[in-house]
Amino acid sequence: MSQKVVLAFSGGLDTSFCVKYLSEDRGMDVYSVLVDTGGFSDAELKAIEERAYSLGVKSHVTISKTDDYYQQCLKFLVYGNVLKNNTYPLSVSAERIFQAIAAAEYAREIGASAIAHGSTGAGNDQVRFDMAFRIIAPDAEVITPIRDLRLSREAEIEYLKAKGVDQEWHKAAYSINKGLWGTSVGGKETLTSDQFLPESAWPTQVTKSDQETITITFQHGEIKGISGAFGDETYNNPVDAIRKLTELAGPFGIGRDIHVGDTIIGIKGRVGFEAPAPLIIIKAHHTLEKHVLGKWQLYWKEQLANWYGTMLHEGQFMDPVMRNIETFLADSQAHVSGKVHVLLAPYRFQVMGIESDHDLMSSKFGSYGEMNNAWTGDDVRGFSKVASNQVMIYEKINNQ
Amino acid sequence: MSQKVVLAFSGGLDTSFCVKYLSEDRGMDVYSVLVDTGGFSDAELKAIEERAYSLGVKSHVTISKTDDYYQQCLKFLVYGNVLKNNTYPLSVSAERIFQAIAAAEYAREIGASAIAHGSTGAGNDQVRFDMAFRIIAPDAEVITPIRDLRLSREAEIEYLKAKGVDQEWHKAAYSINKGLWGTSVGGKETLTSDQFLPESAWPTQVTKSDQETITITFQHGEIKGISGAFGDETYNNPVDAIRKLTELAGPFGIGRDIHVGDTIIGIKGRVGFEAPAPLIIIKAHHTLEKHVLGKWQLYWKEQLANWYGTMLHEGQFMDPVMRNIETFLADSQAHVSGKVHVLLAPYRFQVMGIESDHDLMSSKFGSYGEMNNAWTGDDVRGFSKVASNQVMIYEKINNQ
Amino acid sequence: MSQKVVLAFSGGLDTSFCVKYLSEDRGMDVYSVLVDTGGFSDAELKAIEERAYSLGVKSHVTISKTDDYYQQCLKFLVYGNVLKNNTYPLSVSAERIFQAIAAAEYAREIGASAIAHGSTGAGNDQVRFDMAFRIIAPDAEVITPIRDLRLSREAEIEYLKAKGVDQEWHKAAYSINKGLWGTSVGGKETLTSDQFLPESAWPTQVTKSDQETITITFQHGEIKGISGAFGDETYNNPVDAIRKLTELAGPFGIGRDIHVGDTIIGIKGRVGFEAPAPLIIIKAHHTLEKHVLGKWQLYWKEQLANWYGTMLHEGQFMDPVMRNIETFLADSQAHVSGKVHVLLAPYRFQVMGIESDHDLMSSKFGSYGEMNNAWTGDDVRGFSKVASNQVMIYEKINNQ
Amino acid sequence: MSQKVVLAFSGGLDTSFCVKYLSEDRGMDVYSVLVDTGGFSDAELKAIEERAYSLGVKSHVTISKTDDYYQQCLKFLVYGNVLKNNTYPLSVSAERIFQAIAAAEYAREIGASAIAHGSTGAGNDQVRFDMAFRIIAPDAEVITPIRDLRLSREAEIEYLKAKGVDQEWHKAAYSINKGLWGTSVGGKETLTSDQFLPESAWPTQVTKSDQETITITFQHGEIKGISGAFGDETYNNPVDAIRKLTELAGPFGIGRDIHVGDTIIGIKGRVGFEAPAPLIIIKAHHTLEKHVLGKWQLYWKEQLANWYGTMLHEGQFMDPVMRNIETFLADSQAHVSGKVHVLLAPYRFQVMGIESDHDLMSSKFGSYGEMNNAWTGDDVRGFSKVASNQVMIYEKINNQ
Repeated sequence: MSQKVVLAFSGGLDTSFCVKYLSEDRGMDVYSVLVDTGGFSDAELKAIEERAYSLGVKSHVTISKTDDYYQQCLKFLVYGNVLKNNTYPLSVSAERIFQAIAAAEYAREIGASAIAHGSTGAGNDQVRFDMAFRIIAPDAEVITPIRDLRLSREAEIEYLKAKGVDQEWHKAAYSINKGLWGTSVGGKETLTSDQFLPESAWPTQVTKSDQETITITFQHGEIKGISGAFGDETYNNPVDAIRKLTELAGPFGIGRDIHVGDTIIGIKGRVGFEAPAPLIIIKAHHTLEKHVLGKWQLYWKEQLANWYGTMLHEGQFMDPVMRNIETFLADSQAHVSGKVHVLLAPYRFQVMGIESDHDLMSSKFGSYGEMNNAWTGDDVRGFSKVASNQVMIYEKINNQ
Repeated sequence: MSQKVVLAFSGGLDTSFCVKYLSEDRGMDVYSVLVDTGGFSDAELKAIEERAYSLGVKSHVTISKTDDYYQQCLKFLVYGNVLKNNTYPLSVSAERIFQAIAAAEYAREIGASAIAHGSTGAGNDQVRFDMAFRIIAPDAEVITPIRDLRLSREAEIEYLKAKGVDQEWHKAAYSINKGLWGTSVGGKETLTSDQFLPESAWPTQVTKSDQETITITFQHGEIKGISGAFGDETYNNPVDAIRKLTELAGPFGIGRDIHVGDTIIGIKGRVGFEAPAPLIIIKAHHTLEKHVLGKWQLYWKEQLANWYGTMLHEGQFMDPVMRNIETFLADSQAHVSGKVHVLLAPYRFQVMGIESDHDLMSSKFGSYGEMNNAWTGDDVRGFSKVASNQVMIYEKINNQ
Repeated sequence: MSQKVVLAFSGGLDTSFCVKYLSEDRGMDVYSVLVDTGGFSDAELKAIEERAYSLGVKSHVTISKTDDYYQQCLKFLVYGNVLKNNTYPLSVSAERIFQAIAAAEYAREIGASAIAHGSTGAGNDQVRFDMAFRIIAPDAEVITPIRDLRLSREAEIEYLKAKGVDQEWHKAAYSINKGLWGTSVGGKETLTSDQFLPESAWPTQVTKSDQETITITFQHGEIKGISGAFGDETYNNPVDAIRKLTELAGPFGIGRDIHVGDTIIGIKGRVGFEAPAPLIIIKAHHTLEKHVLGKWQLYWKEQLANWYGTMLHEGQFMDPVMRNIETFLADSQAHVSGKVHVLLAPYRFQVMGIESDHDLMSSKFGSYGEMNNAWTGDDVRGFSKVASNQVMIYEKINNQ
Repeated sequence: MSQKVVLAFSGGLDTSFCVKYLSEDRGMDVYSVLVDTGGFSDAELKAIEERAYSLGVKSHVTISKTDDYYQQCLKFLVYGNVLKNNTYPLSVSAERIFQAIAAAEYAREIGASAIAHGSTGAGNDQVRFDMAFRIIAPDAEVITPIRDLRLSREAEIEYLKAKGVDQEWHKAAYSINKGLWGTSVGGKETLTSDQFLPESAWPTQVTKSDQETITITFQHGEIKGISGAFGDETYNNPVDAIRKLTELAGPFGIGRDIHVGDTIIGIKGRVGFEAPAPLIIIKAHHTLEKHVLGKWQLYWKEQLANWYGTMLHEGQFMDPVMRNIETFLADSQAHVSGKVHVLLAPYRFQVMGIESDHDLMSSKFGSYGEMNNAWTGDDVRGFSKVASNQVMIYEKINNQ
């Protein structure tokens, strides 16, 4: 009986190569799996399935993980206002680890003795796959043909042609990864440090030139509705709100930027992305939080969420501390409910203001810079005195 | 002999009231002082001096602190990429504490037995003045007529009129504080939570509608030059670079936002600001750092700088930990040298890329996602294995 | 009708003065309250009640809060291994804030228009009372006779004598505060920096000179049993375990030290304490955690718990971030179950080792320094290579 | 010409094997090096050199690094009060990384094409060697015979015997590593979780049964003198003070404990240690700091030093952030000068008190719990009011 191998399959050149290599050169039964976290249309999913079978897999499954992806990960990125390096919503990082986990669980479920991925040896994804596979299916062999054989793209095409797969593998100028939480764009300009991506490189072109105002309604930190010129929509599933915002804001060219940061493997990496929905949601949510949370809640949320983002990025999503951090973040959202008004304009957006029953900026107690009802000038005088005691003493003893 | 009181004087209604009140009602000799941190023109300084004498001060001095302000404070806000709550460059916070310190030092120097400020009881500035006065001149009495008497604006005008000061005190719709590191705009919309400032409220109106590209040159974290359509300029004094950027980017409407956050006195406060230079400098500097600093340098710089900004905001600039943090930040800038290309456009700017001899994103060792020269696929396989050991063991013991 | 005032009453000189002062000089109806957090015997509680009535209170109540104190506070100090400044288990800090909260809630419940405490103006307790009163009963006037009148001890005695209270108020050499979570000892040596407390100053004298070994059983972070020469005891209520450990370890002189640290009011304060149970529990619990928790769980627990301890110490127990931190800490305890062996000896104790089903130090995967089963030497070689990539590149670019 | 290999040589079985294996089986010229960080006597150094030559090295050098080790590393562990996991002074971790760096620098200096260490595949040391070698001598091949060949101890002895090295290799019950900053003891009990090391396992036996008091004088954070029954000693080199304290406190059995923690390779490791000098120095230094540093200096020192210790432990000493942290720590020591009194007793020590010109606990401003000179009761009342504003408002809005 042939050895069962699960292959994380995307339908591209690398994983197509893997199917042939694993099934024909290594004589294994290939169980290809595509984990859908919201980045594929039904037509795309169907085409990938057909390709898998045409390449000779024993079985192909599409595992739908979009809701889990939101509930177990994206939700916490919103609660934590997570932008890696203050810029990047972790569009690919989050998605890839979910896909790796689902593939590993599938391998364990069907009793596969091996599990394969098509990553090269120069990126983050290889580590995310390796780690998820090892933690969830530690007894399975991990096979990485592209990384191990170090074949050029041309050699892969040649190999496939020799195996009868004579497709046009046009290399796009940019490598694009489209997902629910944003689309990454890598290549050319991102391979060096000094240039921005040209207008033509962005998957979503700018077609809106006026301005729109929308209102996002949050309940306990999650989006429940969006209103605008199109009317009022409410959502049982926040995934639909993410899609709506992408549709509304994408044609403005909102949420484009280049992220440069530390890869898991120690080199610096640079990648473009367009992520209109994540950028707007996080900024709107964060503004609401600045009104309804206490000073130290904001401080510690930022510490923990920053760490959460880094570990997620680095494939450490399964570390037990991640569950503890999620508990903290969820607990902090009890009063994060209200409306946020946002202006959309070409290439930018602006949070205009918020409304919330939990807004701590209440004029009942005092208005910043205007009047103080809940304390007197003498109270503040005493506060300042006591609050400066230590430094006053320090100066007296050491410098005066 | 009359008691000597030093008054931090700005020429506005509140401190004009203070001059009369202190000199006539309390019979003190008023030594007014204006501390210039870069926000006043020579003409403004002269007008303020004339007003002080016309109101009856015994003496008026202008203390120029612009260079100290940059060298002892703004420089570190750049090194630390400090944006309070991820938004606000601390335009007023930083300036006010410097003014308070200089006024207190002046009081100590001339042997004043009292020191006065015109703050109300509802803002942050009162605490900044109180604390600096107490730490630097702990034996001086602190007098705060506006806070203590709780007079309305109308009552102050009435009082001054009765004293023969019959000026037109037109109340501007917004309270504006113009400084080297940005201009704050408070009033009307900022007193509640739900609205943004209207176009007309911004001191600098938008007059540029095209795009410009500029290049900022940093050396050890400080700006040394700016190039653009206007030519190449080099600066011995980074203060000049800040002024140049304000002039270039202001007419684009760049750097406008509303900050909402926790005041020192516990209420939430909201204030508009336009700060084109700080926003561009910090974003450009931060991007350069992402290329030249190590992962953990970036991490710890952010922790310390965040804290530095909060303490500065809260009037704790004199705390000894601030000096230790400054030492850390300065030490981290050894390799933060290079050029940053920035696109300026109406209401927004975009960092395009960087060039630096210290750029760690060097293709000699590997290109992210493309090729690995300095390690093999097996090395990463080993890395992933060891890096997942703990969670693998944790799962085996607790969940499998 | 007389004004109702709730007085936090302890039966000592200061609060006895307060009863007379409030009832006779201010003509108020005094509702005295003693909040028992586990530091009083029934006889002591009864004596305090009798004293209250004899001084003329309108009503006296004893509010039993021991179990709440454990469930809402001490439990989290154990989960977090909280020792302020690495030394002090917050014996008094934790207790006082609970007493203040209970007194304030009582005031709100009975509709008192004022609420009083007997703290002086030089300690932490005044702030803890002030803050709890203001947050929970913001409309009640806060009356602090001792702080406001600045009476000497002698003057208070004289006053009481004049009111017919002619008791012997012998001033103990040390001020002692006995509580469930430790006993504080202040006075003489602790008022300056250079000396330790003499043997005679400690409330619990050393009467054991041999050694004993005990085993503490934790379940989800809480003590469920203690075994030793005395047999095996299991506890439904961890409060009983704390009492048992105090009884076992106290006569060894275990858990004595002097804490020096920053008071809420900015001066340094020094206080002796004996806290055998907290010290042993925390060290035992922490050792167990080092075996069963992941590296980053340990790291973040320490960060959050350190902060929790500081805010608790400073009277900020009611801040909403404290609830979020408690949620995190509780969530981290899922696997903190097992046995810890502890040696008790005169003036010291030693954690000997632990046993737990969740121990991550399992020889199945490898023994530190001895053998590696779950990875190869080549895996570690790859790990080291990738883990040193960034610094290797940094050195090549900047220093080689 | 033969290939030059530098071997980090200790004279034990593993590195003796390496000499024969590298020179005879692999035909290389072995340049053995012993890096002395203060753990060897002259006689031991001479014996190791003789053994190296007798085994057939081409050259052997002893590199003395004790002073550098103190100046570049131990000093900062004192400034930072670094105890890993609140327990372990990093005795071996610190020493090993220094030895690895010196060996790598030697390899680069003599142009060796390879560099070898004798670590097994189950410990931390392999990573420390690997990383230092790769960062400092990235072009040299790293050879690790013991890790790669996975030979048993018996096989190594057999191999050496076959090569004519017929020595008695008695395996000690415990593996001992003696260094300036403490001695580690591993084996038997430390391989599982539940037992402590027996009295006989400790290298330094307890021979003192009385008590002694000593006084340690710090200047800017470093030890300058120790006084006691033996007289007064001053030190130009703090290394001598470390040796003196080891000599004084070791025979009391002070500073013994077992450290359990996370190894670099993800498993938990447990190791005994005796480190009387580090434990006393750190506790004494920390107590002095609690008197002379500000609250936030103590807070941030702890954060940074904790991180510093972890990275040092994990072989990341060369990361550039380590230099920034050292700068911070050094800057914090300006006023850390004074005397600390310490009681030494069997198995324990107690810091008794401190004396310092920079002591912030000065009764001039107020005595904790006794009197307040520098502020009034009303000042504190105002402080408490303002400090509770946010939570008061939060409760009003959300819960009342």
